[in-house]
Amino acid sequence: MRHQYHPLGFEGSRLAQGFWRMEEWSMTSQESLGFIEACLDLGVTTFDHADIYGDYQCETLFGNALKHKPALRDKMQIITKCGILLPSNRRPDINVHRYNYRAEHILASVDRSLANLQCEYIDTLLLHRPSPLMDADEIAQTLDLLFTLGKVKHFGVSNFTTHQFDLLQSRLDAPLIINQVELSPLALQHFDDGTLNHAQRHAVTPMAWSPFAGGDIFSGTNEKAKRVQVVLKTVAEEMNCTVDQVVVAWLLRHPAEICPVMGSGKVARLAAAVDAMTIALNDDDWFRIWTASQGHSVA
Amino acid sequence: MRHQYHPLGFEGSRLAQGFWRMEEWSMTSQESLGFIEACLDLGVTTFDHADIYGDYQCETLFGNALKHKPALRDKMQIITKCGILLPSNRRPDINVHRYNYRAEHILASVDRSLANLQCEYIDTLLLHRPSPLMDADEIAQTLDLLFTLGKVKHFGVSNFTTHQFDLLQSRLDAPLIINQVELSPLALQHFDDGTLNHAQRHAVTPMAWSPFAGGDIFSGTNEKAKRVQVVLKTVAEEMNCTVDQVVVAWLLRHPAEICPVMGSGKVARLAAAVDAMTIALNDDDWFRIWTASQGHSVA
Amino acid sequence: MRHQYHPLGFEGSRLAQGFWRMEEWSMTSQESLGFIEACLDLGVTTFDHADIYGDYQCETLFGNALKHKPALRDKMQIITKCGILLPSNRRPDINVHRYNYRAEHILASVDRSLANLQCEYIDTLLLHRPSPLMDADEIAQTLDLLFTLGKVKHFGVSNFTTHQFDLLQSRLDAPLIINQVELSPLALQHFDDGTLNHAQRHAVTPMAWSPFAGGDIFSGTNEKAKRVQVVLKTVAEEMNCTVDQVVVAWLLRHPAEICPVMGSGKVARLAAAVDAMTIALNDDDWFRIWTASQGHSVA
Repeated sequence: MRHQYHPLGFEGSRLAQGFWRMEEWSMTSQESLGFIEACLDLGVTTFDHADIYGDYQCETLFGNALKHKPALRDKMQIITKCGILLPSNRRPDINVHRYNYRAEHILASVDRSLANLQCEYIDTLLLHRPSPLMDADEIAQTLDLLFTLGKVKHFGVSNFTTHQFDLLQSRLDAPLIINQVELSPLALQHFDDGTLNHAQRHAVTPMAWSPFAGGDIFSGTNEKAKRVQVVLKTVAEEMNCTVDQVVVAWLLRHPAEICPVMGSGKVARLAAAVDAMTIALNDDDWFRIWTASQGHSVA
Repeated sequence: MRHQYHPLGFEGSRLAQGFWRMEEWSMTSQESLGFIEACLDLGVTTFDHADIYGDYQCETLFGNALKHKPALRDKMQIITKCGILLPSNRRPDINVHRYNYRAEHILASVDRSLANLQCEYIDTLLLHRPSPLMDADEIAQTLDLLFTLGKVKHFGVSNFTTHQFDLLQSRLDAPLIINQVELSPLALQHFDDGTLNHAQRHAVTPMAWSPFAGGDIFSGTNEKAKRVQVVLKTVAEEMNCTVDQVVVAWLLRHPAEICPVMGSGKVARLAAAVDAMTIALNDDDWFRIWTASQGHSVA
Repeated sequence: MRHQYHPLGFEGSRLAQGFWRMEEWSMTSQESLGFIEACLDLGVTTFDHADIYGDYQCETLFGNALKHKPALRDKMQIITKCGILLPSNRRPDINVHRYNYRAEHILASVDRSLANLQCEYIDTLLLHRPSPLMDADEIAQTLDLLFTLGKVKHFGVSNFTTHQFDLLQSRLDAPLIINQVELSPLALQHFDDGTLNHAQRHAVTPMAWSPFAGGDIFSGTNEKAKRVQVVLKTVAEEMNCTVDQVVVAWLLRHPAEICPVMGSGKVARLAAAVDAMTIALNDDDWFRIWTASQGHSVA
């Protein structure tokens, strides 16, 4: 269940719990605290945030829960992200949905995240999306400063191509330890386009966002989703487990050591995913799912 | 206004003046000289040529102008290109529109360019287009020879992918200092495909050909062009400048330090572009233009 | 006619003879022996196999021929492949058409190939197709073991992207010496996508499978095939040779030093291909063929 996020990174849990829908969970801060403790009890200690989740509210909801029991902080690893500007009533200073990786924005975003999360440090800060206007030198300097200030311990990226990754890494002393990308049986592009090869080569941890394809794994209505659903259900029945669990096992099987980010606010679903870590999906079934998604047999 | 084309390259101007339409300008050699002097007076000292421009005539037109005042040579940096064979009445030896990077062709092409331009050296020679038949070893040897002979001071490429660039660079001692590619608000592909990331990583100067998308920025009739035109006009009005200037400022804002190649033979338009160097396009407007071209908001 | 497959690889023949259709040739083992000897007499000493060819039968057919004259073994270089599981009556243990690069499968596959081929070593083992489940570390360890055991002398891949190649190479001490990919006047994708650039950069030999596009070079009925056929026929007539020979000469002209894998069981056709090695296809004709396939002139 433990996972080393890069040799020079941190030790966290193989499954991460994401909080991008936390605002929809409508929990009191005490209920949120209970959820967080339940995650930790299950061994899920890596928590995934972003400044913008829940229209800029999820970090605060999490922080309000953590405030009840600050001692929990050191039992978890907090990932958060910066770089997207999302127009919002809560952020009237933002005019255009765009990216921003200028030094002053990154620094301010981290300070806001720390305040919202009620923490003194972030375990890993991710650049949320590559921007055409990223200045790798300015970013590297800013991340170095954040490290020196003790505000952020490690750095990573999200949705970066190999070229974008290589550029930023070339300017940084510290290794980028994570690339969080979309990976699921319905999102195979990064299995083929070099992203996972590159991550393996450099010992970068690929985290999978939308491991259930935003629910399409269960209820998508296009042809591809329906093909995959049929196979997933068959495999789940044969293994006497749930479709969720098959998908988690399918992602875990990959040699790149993918860390899926789970998004449900229900402890039972997270517990089921944790159980899936002991499921040994055989390679025949792995490729049945792959083939169903591709729509054709391997070559 | 000055720009260092690669740390080991030359110092030139941030805006380059291109001469691919020079034949259409129908200037006498004295008028051409006047145009060249006007460019220099504006601080535009980097001049972009290719052997084939104007059906193989533009270099000669430029050289005929320069002949009137040879002392100007050392006040400018001349880029020219080789490698495309273009069937032409002027070149009856060419049978097929194709590429040629054999040693004898490169050497002969440079000698022709030097004679046409009435110069003793070329500041930077670019390989005009990648050819499937490029032999990187043969090319590297040939470029080394051209350097040793004093005929060419620096080397670069045009329209090269990162793989093509890496192959040729692996065989060359001297750095490739330029990759001239199509870049404009209507040509975003190289912002995403690794070309600009790779250039930044290796301190290669990306030069932008067709910065106004061959006029489509002003008068293109497809949906994308129309969307971009609307935003460009709005921004231009807000900033009290011209659409040309907004486009130049948009290219200059990119951290890869793009050098646009201007193509007009009118001094006033070049002067306006030079003025655009002082325009601080804000990032909101930069992304409004980006988003209009993409046809959707950023992710 | 000799070709060094990578500086640290082996010396073989520039043309390789493939045996993927050997089962269709319906030869007795004595006839097969005759064919093999005829290949060697022509200077074609590099023989290309895979475990799965001919529904897992071709290696055995070859081995049965070689058994008649084991002394021939050291006069040839044998390439074979592993990693594809192909459901077959002959392999009832295989349930799903998929890939398998686990250590036990690679080791067992090589042992079967050695037994089938009636050889003590394989000159070069190729991973037949990239698999999403390849574990580069496990593979590297396994290949090292095969080398140490003396069962395989060199290693390579087939149909690998540059990212897949780089990942595996990063874990291997020995160089990957071959990437066997589809290359023909009707299959231009790898001329442009970095595969051939990368191979040249690292002195990897690209071998061309389906150099005649599975026969479409002669009889394909789509527009592209028809355009290419017209040009190939014209060039063949002008050069007083066959279309086969033009295609071979076209592949050989490429600076990546492509080694085509010939697939016919007829000695005369192989002899014709060997003769094509002396044909100097001129670059005009090379590009006429390229242009016909692209469907448009070069840029």
